Amino acid sequence: MMKMVLPLFFIVVSCGSSVERPLSDPKIGIQRPSKRVVLKGLKRPWSAAFLAANEVLIAEKDGDLLYVNLSTKERTTIKGFPDDLADSLLVNVTEHPLGTFPRGADGKKLKYNAGIFDVVLHPDFENNHKLYISYVSRKGENSTTKVVQAVLEKKTLTQLKPIFIADPYTIGLFHYGGGMTFGADGKLYITIGERLFTEANQPPMPIAQDLRDKRGKIYRLNDDGSIPTDNPNFGDEAVPGLYAIGIRAAQGITMHPKTGEIWFSEHGTRQGDEINKLEAGANYGWPIKTSGGYRGAGYTPPKLEDRSFTAPKWYWLQTVAPTGLTFYTGNDFPLWKDNLIIPGLSRGSLWRVVLENDTIMSLEELFVHDRVRARKVVQSPDGKLYLLTDEEDGKMILIENNVD
Amino acid sequence: MMKMVLPLFFIVVSCGSSVERPLSDPKIGIQRPSKRVVLKGLKRPWSAAFLAANEVLIAEKDGDLLYVNLSTKERTTIKGFPDDLADSLLVNVTEHPLGTFPRGADGKKLKYNAGIFDVVLHPDFENNHKLYISYVSRKGENSTTKVVQAVLEKKTLTQLKPIFIADPYTIGLFHYGGGMTFGADGKLYITIGERLFTEANQPPMPIAQDLRDKRGKIYRLNDDGSIPTDNPNFGDEAVPGLYAIGIRAAQGITMHPKTGEIWFSEHGTRQGDEINKLEAGANYGWPIKTSGGYRGAGYTPPKLEDRSFTAPKWYWLQTVAPTGLTFYTGNDFPLWKDNLIIPGLSRGSLWRVVLENDTIMSLEELFVHDRVRARKVVQSPDGKLYLLTDEEDGKMILIENNVD
Repeated sequence: MMKMVLPLFFIVVSCGSSVERPLSDPKIGIQRPSKRVVLKGLKRPWSAAFLAANEVLIAEKDGDLLYVNLSTKERTTIKGFPDDLADSLLVNVTEHPLGTFPRGADGKKLKYNAGIFDVVLHPDFENNHKLYISYVSRKGENSTTKVVQAVLEKKTLTQLKPIFIADPYTIGLFHYGGGMTFGADGKLYITIGERLFTEANQPPMPIAQDLRDKRGKIYRLNDDGSIPTDNPNFGDEAVPGLYAIGIRAAQGITMHPKTGEIWFSEHGTRQGDEINKLEAGANYGWPIKTSGGYRGAGYTPPKLEDRSFTAPKWYWLQTVAPTGLTFYTGNDFPLWKDNLIIPGLSRGSLWRVVLENDTIMSLEELFVHDRVRARKVVQSPDGKLYLLTDEEDGKMILIENNVD
Repeated sequence: MMKMVLPLFFIVVSCGSSVERPLSDPKIGIQRPSKRVVLKGLKRPWSAAFLAANEVLIAEKDGDLLYVNLSTKERTTIKGFPDDLADSLLVNVTEHPLGTFPRGADGKKLKYNAGIFDVVLHPDFENNHKLYISYVSRKGENSTTKVVQAVLEKKTLTQLKPIFIADPYTIGLFHYGGGMTFGADGKLYITIGERLFTEANQPPMPIAQDLRDKRGKIYRLNDDGSIPTDNPNFGDEAVPGLYAIGIRAAQGITMHPKTGEIWFSEHGTRQGDEINKLEAGANYGWPIKTSGGYRGAGYTPPKLEDRSFTAPKWYWLQTVAPTGLTFYTGNDFPLWKDNLIIPGLSRGSLWRVVLENDTIMSLEELFVHDRVRARKVVQSPDGKLYLLTDEEDGKMILIENNVD
């Protein structure tokens, strides 16, 4: 249908793709997400932080912190990574004190789920070159989640400063958490998992509900690791820096660039994977409340009836294993603006979540025909959406609008 | 961003909503589906067939075939419905020979899942006023699915002619099927369910695989009920009119208005709900192959290794109970053009499926915050999308683009 529109200065291409099209093109507004591999051979990449449109730091869970130039393809290992990093290594699980782990293929050994998790730039990185890394720190047979601040200088981490350690070091091999984001308030938010594989190992006061235990919690810290004066008050017994409790295993946490709201994903046990909105002082309920089931028959949590729990904004009825989510504000998919994009490990698809304020209106599962263990989505400074895959030959994939 | 575009005749609003907007409006292209109830008090409506933009026949599963004028709100029962219609009535299931049915609230009685199913207009209805109804026909304690052709004259069904009966009449109370659509070839396609509740009642040759049994099949007939000469050949033993076999419980079946492809939905037992593309001679596998589980432990189907099964194009991992699907070609949601819209009873949401040829690219679950048992979606001649809800106070709901 042709329209004559006057005056000329009202003519705005406000809905098209990033490709120049005459306004008569019937494909304006159509979006056809497709994948283009831009990097391969990454060792189970977990996170990425863009220094510029084509320069990115990539944290490999089973490898190193890398600097990559997407134009030249230069790939350099960042020097100076903390030496207490626990590499993935084989552990003989038949002798493990917590013994109820899944067995590896030989019936005995399991690849330790350790390594580097997140890398996040300080909001003022441009000037101070500060960044934050989360990883598994090892002491003998024990380990825990640790966050270190560093100054990036000539592709080397300098001035290393521990910001947070989820001590004590323990024997558990799972659910370290390690997701991080800065908030609109300039504070650093960190997720720490409860470190159990099965509820059979829960103490009488479950870990994620125990205010004296650092595991199973979300923290809010000043950028130097000190405790903000306006954190929620969990009482005198509580470990410092607490922002929310009742967390089983959360890895993805992200801030809405406009509203400042923080949203996070969480892994349930049997189903029960969730999308949550972060609120000060909230108790997300694990393991008292879960939207899924428990692993292993017969676990009955204590009721803790005096506690008030915060329900997820969404939970899936099938296992998705949602991780490194992000809000989308790019230009390739104008219709996705402000949607929450969530990668899933288990089924290997990407989820696009439409929100109106706090309410989830719809969810679209993308790439159902082209699945890959999806670990993290991150938006570059020039608004492009990238996906990291959790594979031994891991990839960084550009999600582009291939409308032709 | 302002652009001067010349010459003027290239300026086309090709991506907007149906509301007039200046091209500078940033909401062009945004779609915000919302619900507007246009009718209430329908008795578990199952299907609708539009006579004109604002005139519609509605088949109530637990009521009547109605004529409704959406402008004047006139609601008239169509006279002359066949008198062998089995109303929903209470059956004492503790005495039922197939005894393994779910119990009603009193532990004994169950509301018989009978009534009127589909109403479909002949492709040349404008001239011949022919339509087709599917419903549960009753003979004493036995019933089956029946399709009758009628001529609509002054809000009365006349010249009733049985087109198809899934005889023999049997005791089973479930899974009648009854979905119907005309194809691009002018033939009538009908789904008939297998009529079992649990696999414990399967004979050694399962019903849906038994070529001599009319249940659990999809049929292709001439508009007078005779058998087309170009139907697939299932052999001499096969019941007449067979087009596909291996169907458990399919209610939604629809034709793509451009390609002529026919797609149908199907209910699995434990999960295993599917989207299938209809192909001549196909065996959709039930109960030999299922994407879900079986009801009741211990059922082992025969292998039937000489048979070749057709996999679904999609199956859900959670129960959705998908039913009366349709392809969308309206104008309120230009970005949904040619998408498959599928209502779900069980979780009460609407699914929007993006296809490229036969491949499902993505699925969006809509109205997750506003669930209602969704039975059928149907598009009016003026391109509006309506939803029928499976409730005792059932509704017809307009799905509109409420971008403001």
